[in-house]
Amino acid sequence: MSAEEVVNGMESLGVQEKQEEDDDHVDPWSVTSKNDAGIDYDKLIKRFGSSKLDDEILARFEKVTGKPCHRFLRRGIFFSHRDLHTILTLREQGKPFFLYTGRGPSSGSMHLGHLVPFIITKWIQETFDVPLVIQLTDDEKSLWKDLKVEETMKLARENAKDIIALGFDVRKTFVFSNLDFMGRCPEMYQNIIRIQRCVTFNQVKGIFGFGDSDVIGKIGFPAAQAVPCMSSTFPFIFGKKNIHCLIPCAIDQDPYFRMTRDVAPRVGFPKPALLHSTFFPALQGAKSKMSASDPNSAIFLTDTPKQIKTKINKHAFSGGRDTVEEHRTLGGDTNVDVPYQLLKFFLDDDEELERVRVAYSTGQMLSGEIKKKAVETLQPIVEEHQKQRKLVTDEVLNEFMSLRKLEFS
Amino acid sequence: MSAEEVVNGMESLGVQEKQEEDDDHVDPWSVTSKNDAGIDYDKLIKRFGSSKLDDEILARFEKVTGKPCHRFLRRGIFFSHRDLHTILTLREQGKPFFLYTGRGPSSGSMHLGHLVPFIITKWIQETFDVPLVIQLTDDEKSLWKDLKVEETMKLARENAKDIIALGFDVRKTFVFSNLDFMGRCPEMYQNIIRIQRCVTFNQVKGIFGFGDSDVIGKIGFPAAQAVPCMSSTFPFIFGKKNIHCLIPCAIDQDPYFRMTRDVAPRVGFPKPALLHSTFFPALQGAKSKMSASDPNSAIFLTDTPKQIKTKINKHAFSGGRDTVEEHRTLGGDTNVDVPYQLLKFFLDDDEELERVRVAYSTGQMLSGEIKKKAVETLQPIVEEHQKQRKLVTDEVLNEFMSLRKLEFS
Repeated sequence: MSAEEVVNGMESLGVQEKQEEDDDHVDPWSVTSKNDAGIDYDKLIKRFGSSKLDDEILARFEKVTGKPCHRFLRRGIFFSHRDLHTILTLREQGKPFFLYTGRGPSSGSMHLGHLVPFIITKWIQETFDVPLVIQLTDDEKSLWKDLKVEETMKLARENAKDIIALGFDVRKTFVFSNLDFMGRCPEMYQNIIRIQRCVTFNQVKGIFGFGDSDVIGKIGFPAAQAVPCMSSTFPFIFGKKNIHCLIPCAIDQDPYFRMTRDVAPRVGFPKPALLHSTFFPALQGAKSKMSASDPNSAIFLTDTPKQIKTKINKHAFSGGRDTVEEHRTLGGDTNVDVPYQLLKFFLDDDEELERVRVAYSTGQMLSGEIKKKAVETLQPIVEEHQKQRKLVTDEVLNEFMSLRKLEFS
Repeated sequence: MSAEEVVNGMESLGVQEKQEEDDDHVDPWSVTSKNDAGIDYDKLIKRFGSSKLDDEILARFEKVTGKPCHRFLRRGIFFSHRDLHTILTLREQGKPFFLYTGRGPSSGSMHLGHLVPFIITKWIQETFDVPLVIQLTDDEKSLWKDLKVEETMKLARENAKDIIALGFDVRKTFVFSNLDFMGRCPEMYQNIIRIQRCVTFNQVKGIFGFGDSDVIGKIGFPAAQAVPCMSSTFPFIFGKKNIHCLIPCAIDQDPYFRMTRDVAPRVGFPKPALLHSTFFPALQGAKSKMSASDPNSAIFLTDTPKQIKTKINKHAFSGGRDTVEEHRTLGGDTNVDVPYQLLKFFLDDDEELERVRVAYSTGQMLSGEIKKKAVETLQPIVEEHQKQRKLVTDEVLNEFMSLRKLEFS
C-alpha cells in the first residue's frame, strides 16, 4: 500500500475542504464564527466525523466510574468524542490506558480558557487513576510565532508551572517540552520518523491547509503532536506495553489526531480516543475564543481581583437588554451572555447556576448583577491559582519533567 | 525578511531546474550520465556554482600544511570546493575549525566507493589535527528506502564499524546516528527547528525536487543533514564556541549544503566549507556510480580475494580494444577503463600509476594485465580492512559514539 492510497476512506479526508463553505472556521491556529452564539458544534461534529457526547454515553460513563460526571461533561462543555466507548470497555475489562493532553506555549501568562482541558484531564485522571503525559509544543510555537527556540523553551517551563499548580499528582504525571524531551529520549524522534514516513505533503495539505510557502518545520510538525499517543514514546513509563490513549482537548486540535488515527494501524499502535471541548469564549463574545494575544479578550491567571472586575465590567459581552425596563420584561440571553458563559464553566454548583440562569433569562437579574456574580466566582479561583502557582518551584517542575516510572495499575 | 525572500541571490537558487536539460543527473539519490566517460565535472562546477580545486589552491594547501597533497587531491578525485580558502586562512591565523562528513546506511555491507570521503577526511584530520564528527543518516534511509527504523539503526552501527576500521582516532572523532543521537542531545533537535523555521517547501522543492506526494519526513530531513555544520549541535565537544566546519563529501551531497549555506547567516553560524569528490565508478563503467544495491557493480568490503578477482575480470568495463592486435596498435582508453580508474583511486604510488597509464594507453599493457594489476592492488586493501574491522567491537564503537570532549587546539 502506498502512502497515497492510505488516505482513502480515512477520517482526515476532505474535512478541510468542507470548512471553507462554512460560517465557522476551526483549525489549530484560528477559531472564528460569524454567528453571535459562536460555533455551531453539532455541525462541527458532522464535519469532523466525530460522535456526540450524548446522554447515553454520559450515563455509561457514570455507571463505569461509579460517580457523577464533572460539570464540563454534565453541561456539554465537552460535547464530542471519538472511541470513548473503547476506553470505558477497557476499564470494565480491567485493562490499562493513559491520558495525554498538552499546550502550545505562545505566551508566558495563561488565561482561564487554557485551563479547561487540564481541569477535565485532572478529574479523569483522579476518577480512573491512570498515568498522564502533558506535552508542551515549544517547537510548534517557534515555528508558527516569531519566537526564538530559547524563548519558547522558557515559556514552556512557565506554562508548565501554571498547569502543575492545578494540583496534578507527580507520581502519576509526566510533563515534557518537545525541544527538551526530544534530546532526552531517543524513542520520541524514532516514533516521529515512523509517523513521518507514512504521511505525505498532500495529506497534511488536506488536513491542515499547509501550502508551498510554509516552512518545512510546520509541514513535519504534526508528527510531533502525534507521537505521545504511542505509549512506546515513553518507555520509562510504559516499558514495552502498547496501550490505549485518551486525549481531552479543545476540538480545534482534532486535525492532529485525525491524522494520528489514520496512520495508527500502519505504524502499529491503537488509535487514540478523544474527548473534545467547546471553546472558551473571548470576553467580547463567542464569535472568537479567549486569546492571550488580545489582553482585553482574556482573564489571565496573573490578573489581580481588581483587573478581573474591571475586565468583566468593561469588556464582557452582555446578553442583557438595552434598558432596565426592557430587560425586566424580556430577560437576558444566556446563549450569548459572556458572564453567564463564564459561570457555566466555573461555577460548580448546579443548583446555583440554574437559579442564575432562570433569574437572568426572566429579567429578575440584571446585567450588572450577573457580571458581579461572575467576578465573585472567578476572583477566588484565580487567587487560589496564584497561591498554588507560587509553590511550583523550579525543583518541583524538574521533578514533573524527570524521566521516571509512573504509578498505574 | 520573510522566508520566501531569503531565496533571492542564494546559492541554491535554480540549480535543480538547470539539471533537467543536461546529459548528467546528479542529486543525493541518483547519479547517472549518458556519456561513457561519466559526469562532466567542469559543467557540474558551473551548474552548482562551486569553485574548481585548481593548481593554485592545491599549491596553497601544500604551503599551509607543509606536506604534499593526498593522491585524491593530486589526481583530481576531489575536484571542487566552496570556501576552502577560508579554512586555509583560519589555519594560518591559528584559528580552529572542525570536520564533518557522513554516510546514509542503506545496506549492511559497504563497498570501496563508500570509503572515498572517509579516506580523505582521515588524511585531512591527521594533517590539520582537528576534531571530526561523522553522521550516519539512519533516519534518511528509513524515509527513502523501505527500511524500518530498527533496521536502519542496526545498519548504522554496522557501517560505523567499517568507517572506524579505517583507523580514526577515538580522541578526536565523534560518530553518531541521527535516530540515536537525537535522543541524547537536545541541541540537535533545537538546531533542526532553527533551520526548519527558515526554509520553505518551495525552497526544498527547488533544491531537492521534492513533490506533493513525498512524505513529510523527506521534506523536513535536509535540516538533519544541515545541523552538524553548527558547532553548537555538539556542546559536549565545542562548548559555546561557534566555529567553522569543513565537509569532505561526494558532490551529490552538495544540495544539502547549498541549503545550509543559504540559511547560515539567518541562523547565526558560519557557512560550511566543502570539498567535493567525483563519483567512484560502477564496475560497469562511469555512466553510473558504484552501488550497493547492484552486487555486480560493486566491490564490497566483505568480498573475498577470489570474489574481487572474479568481479573485476567478469564485470569491470574495459577501455581495451576488441582484438590484441588492435590494442597493441591503438592502446587502451584510460578515461573509460574501470580497472585503470580503480588504480587511480587506490594505487598510492604516482610513478607506478604513471607507468601503468603509459603502458596501457600505448598498448604495451593488455586488458587482462591491467585487470590483474587492479585485482592485486585491491585484494590486500580489502583484506587489511577486514582485519581491522574485526578489531572494532561493540565496545570500541560505543566509545566513538559516546558524548565526550574531543582533543583539539
